[in-house]
Parts: sequence; structure tokens; C-alpha cells
Amino acid sequence: VALTYKPTHRLGRVVVLVGGVGGAKLAHGLAQVLEPEQLTVIVNTGDDFWHRGLRVCPDLDTVMYTLAGIVDRTNGWGIAGDTTAMLEALRRYGEDPWFRLGDQDLATHLLRTEAWQRGERLTAITRDLATRLGIGVALLPMSDSVQATVVDTVEHGLLPFQEYFVRYCWQPTVRAIRFESAGDTPAAPTAEARAAIEAADALLIAPSNPWLSIDPILHLDGMRALLLARAIPRVAVSPIVAGRAIKGPAAKLMAELGLAVSSVSIAEYYGTMVNGFVHDVQDGAAAAAALAEHGVRTLQTNTVMTNDTERASLAQQMLGWLAEWSHA
Amino acid sequence: VALTYKPTHRLGRVVVLVGGVGGAKLAHGLAQVLEPEQLTVIVNTGDDFWHRGLRVCPDLDTVMYTLAGIVDRTNGWGIAGDTTAMLEALRRYGEDPWFRLGDQDLATHLLRTEAWQRGERLTAITRDLATRLGIGVALLPMSDSVQATVVDTVEHGLLPFQEYFVRYCWQPTVRAIRFESAGDTPAAPTAEARAAIEAADALLIAPSNPWLSIDPILHLDGMRALLLARAIPRVAVSPIVAGRAIKGPAAKLMAELGLAVSSVSIAEYYGTMVNGFVHDVQDGAAAAAALAEHGVRTLQTNTVMTNDTERASLAQQMLGWLAEWSHA
Repeated sequence: VALTYKPTHRLGRVVVLVGGVGGAKLAHGLAQVLEPEQLTVIVNTGDDFWHRGLRVCPDLDTVMYTLAGIVDRTNGWGIAGDTTAMLEALRRYGEDPWFRLGDQDLATHLLRTEAWQRGERLTAITRDLATRLGIGVALLPMSDSVQATVVDTVEHGLLPFQEYFVRYCWQPTVRAIRFESAGDTPAAPTAEARAAIEAADALLIAPSNPWLSIDPILHLDGMRALLLARAIPRVAVSPIVAGRAIKGPAAKLMAELGLAVSSVSIAEYYGTMVNGFVHDVQDGAAAAAALAEHGVRTLQTNTVMTNDTERASLAQQMLGWLAEWSHA
Repeated sequence: VALTYKPTHRLGRVVVLVGGVGGAKLAHGLAQVLEPEQLTVIVNTGDDFWHRGLRVCPDLDTVMYTLAGIVDRTNGWGIAGDTTAMLEALRRYGEDPWFRLGDQDLATHLLRTEAWQRGERLTAITRDLATRLGIGVALLPMSDSVQATVVDTVEHGLLPFQEYFVRYCWQPTVRAIRFESAGDTPAAPTAEARAAIEAADALLIAPSNPWLSIDPILHLDGMRALLLARAIPRVAVSPIVAGRAIKGPAAKLMAELGLAVSSVSIAEYYGTMVNGFVHDVQDGAAAAAALAEHGVRTLQTNTVMTNDTERASLAQQMLGWLAEWSHA
């Protein structure tokens, strides 16, 4: 990862909460402009599941592959140039290979599953894999305990997240979303995630799906209180741009939940969890006015991140903006 | 698998004990000339091991891929046209991918491991996989219990079989071979293997390595007595042809064990376990004379099986020869 921008701001440590593709882009932008020790990326693991006997962590992998510079840039997930020979072989056995496990990608799942079966924590497993791929920033799963996202749909009832998202291509109508902890005690953030949040000078929420990617993190036992206790900039980036989602089911889901599909709805949804909000220039003046009325500091800029430079540019602008807060 | 030869003999049921590549060839020859319900293939599972969290059964897979017509004919094992993207990805993580797990091949290991973790018997798992690949003959692991072959070497001490065979390319000097059952009770043949042996009209031992591939089967609790109790043709095919091994470490191993590298040594090694012996035309008259003196019926023919026709031809000749025994 080339350092396109030099740090000009004086923010010490930044924590960003992320889901998959959109979150990975912002994490990559931040990684370009911050020193590795300044950045902690906390990743949603609500999508994680057992598949074909393997522990698969889709969002962790998307962020890891993106930070390592090996992600498939067309899809935004998976490894560039990966093949699907194993999936085709499953078809020979009469199986329906509905979840893509690329051949190169399988190496990650095999190493993770082996370590998981040995009893290692997901945090340690992820650190090991990320380090081996040359990633310098701290990449943390939100929890070492299982908390699975379950989607309640009109057509199929309760669906494990990946069935909703991949098998049914997020086409079912969502009526509710649940987070199910394994075992009796609710899943909690790791000591590493807690420490990073407690030491942070700024907290960012990536333009990931608030309901499907960020809520699982916020739902962890004690997480909301931990974040609200920090008197620092807590800034979300809107995943809704000019009334549309850049990728994935955010807009469709908002409509199903009875919400107006706008960045204003996103800001309202995060409520007091954030004291700053970043939204896109395509949103126009009306949205900017509505957000100003909402009572949080706002930054209106280009948030779409279509290439590495735009990722770094958004990160740079946000960090510059946040650095000014202390002088205001 | 095309039926190249029509059955002309009247042997009802045949059981063949096999290891990997050489055994797979004879099993394939027999499958070409017998009706599926006539043939039971009992496969060595002493080479099986856990690798990268997967339950890998090299000999079972070699025989299964061969019978399904999808084997890589150059190597004799693995799937034709398979790729190694996963292994290359392991290398990116700094791993040494010493054991080949082809990308297509991984589908087999994943399905097997998933079923194994659910507690299914290897016999049932193998039947399921083989059936899905269109295999009609009974393909049986020698046991549902683990009995691992361990090779005691001069250079590295005790080595699990695959470390000796693949990692060190069978180059270490062997001083002894052990069979280690998991748990307190020795591994035993399955009910399916027992029933097949008890119902057999002829028992064949494929030209597999006697020490590394056939001995693990014979070592199973009660197996030798079970075989010796059957007053039927019990015939081994020599893996040594004109003093050389067709493939693998048989000749090298025999020398290390202090044996003359000849088909006569193989017949002597099997002793009373066999009452008939098949050896190659390349062996010459001296070997034939020595074998005749050894006191078993012998068939000298082309045993090398370089193509499908030669496999079927050897099977056909052996079965014809065996059918004559009852008239002798």
C-alpha cells in the first residue's frame, strides 16, 4: 500500500467500525494516510458462519484482502484472480455451491478453521493471518464470541445472514433483524477492541450497512456505553448517497423498515451515538440543511471512493476536519 | 467405464485388497470385466491423516477417482486437470504446502470431513461419495477405526506415513513399520468388509506395496484369521517386476529390510496367506521356476497395466485362471 498522502493532522489514534466492502474501502483509505500504529479496524463478525466444515468470516476477509492489496476489485470481496475449481467439483458431487469459496480463498478458511479447532481466539487468528499478509494496522474482530445475525423475512421466516445475503441475494423482504449469541452470556467486545476504543482520539463508523454491519457491533454487551463514554469525535459516514445505496441492500432494507432512504435517516438512526456525520456532495443542499438541523457537525464531501486515491482523499479530509474540532 | 471384456468366467464374488495407484489399476480392470455387484474393493486406510483440518484418505481417493474415471492418469492419483490455487495461496501465508491438496480434490476432503465431524462412519461416507461419482462396485475402507501406519526411519526416527511418503519422498531409510490404533482396542475390519470376505469366491491382493499398503489391512484385528479361514483362491499379484518396482518405494524398502528384490520374495512374504501368485512375464524362467518350487499355483502374464485395456486384460486372465481352479 503506497502512502499517497502524508499525515498533516495531529489525531493520534483512530478506531473505525466496519462491515464488508464499503467499510474495507474506508479502512484502506485510512491505512494510506495514517501510520500503522495509529489505526485500529474493528470488524463485524455477525456474518460469520460454518460452511462445509469451515469457519468463514466474510467481512474480516474482505477487509483483510483489501488492506493486503489482494482483493478482487471488481467484486470488492474475494481474492483477485481467484478460481472456483473446488466449487465446480462440489457440483460434480451433486452439491449446490451457493456460497462462493474461491480456491485461493480456501487457504484462509483452512488456516482459520485449523486454529479455531485448536481453541485459538479469533482475535489471535486474525492477527496472525493479517501479519502474514503484511498488514500493519490492527485488524480486530468485534468479538471472540459468536453473535450471529439472523434476518426475519416475510418469504422464508428466519434466515441465517449468509442465506439471506448470498443464497437469496438479499431479495427477501426483511421485517426484523436479530443478533443471537451462542451460549448463555451475550457476546462482548474483546479486550483489544475495548482498549483501542478507550485509547482512541476519534471513532469512525464506516459507510457500511447500519442495520446489517454496524448494529451487530453496537449490539455487543457494553459496546454502546463504551462508545458513548468517550468524549471524542464519533463520526459516521453515510452509506446512502443521493437516496441510493452504493452497494448492497441498505436502500431496499430501509424502505422495508419504513424509513425514508436518505442520509438524514442514517444520521437519525445513529442518534446520539455520533456527534459528527459525513455525507456525499451528491446529497444536495436540502439534505445538508436537514442534517444541520439534526444538530451534529457535518462534512459534505465526495464519499464514493471509486479508487485508491479517492479512498485516501476521503480519509485525509475527514481526519483534517476532525483535527479542527479541538480548535473549535 | 466401458465394458471392454464380457465376463466369461463363473466366479460369483470377488474381493480385492488394494493400496493406492497399483491397486487402483487392478480394481479398475476388475470393474471393467465384472458386474458391479460381483466386486468389492477393500482399501488401505493406514495412510489416512488429518491435514489442514481435513480428513484425507489418499488411497481411498486414488481408487475412487480411478473407478470414477476422473483420475489424473499421469500421476495415477488426484483428479485430472486439477489446479493448485489453494496451495499457492498457502504459500502466500508463508506455509510450506508439502502435501498436494488439489483444488477440485478439496471438495472431496471438505465433504468427507464435514460428514466425519457429524460422526458418520468412514464406510458410509465413502459409499456416499462413490455413489455420487457414479461408482457401482462396493468401495470399502478397511476399517472405520483409525489405524495409522508409522514408519521408523534411520534419519528422522518415527514418521507418520505421509511425512515419510510425500514430505520426504520416501527417501529416508526404513528400519521398521508400525501400525498404531487410536484408542485402546485394536482397529478391526468393518462388518461390510467381513461380510464381503465371507461371501467371496476369490480373494485377490493387488500389486500394491505389501509392507506399506497391504500389511495395514492384514494387521487389522482378526483379519488374517478371517482370510485364512476361507478355502477359496487367495491370490496376490506381484508389485515387483523383473527386480524393479513399477512405482513407489517397494524395491527400495525391500532392500532396506534385507530382502532380495524379486517376486519370489513377495510370494515368500505373503506365505500361506496366498495359495496362488501372479507375476510378470518379464520375470523370466528362473523366477517362474523358483515360484513353482515355492508351492503355490502361479500365473505368469503381463501385469504392468499401462492402459485400460491391459487392466481389463489382466483382470480377465486372472479370473479365467481362477475359474479353472475348481475344475482342477
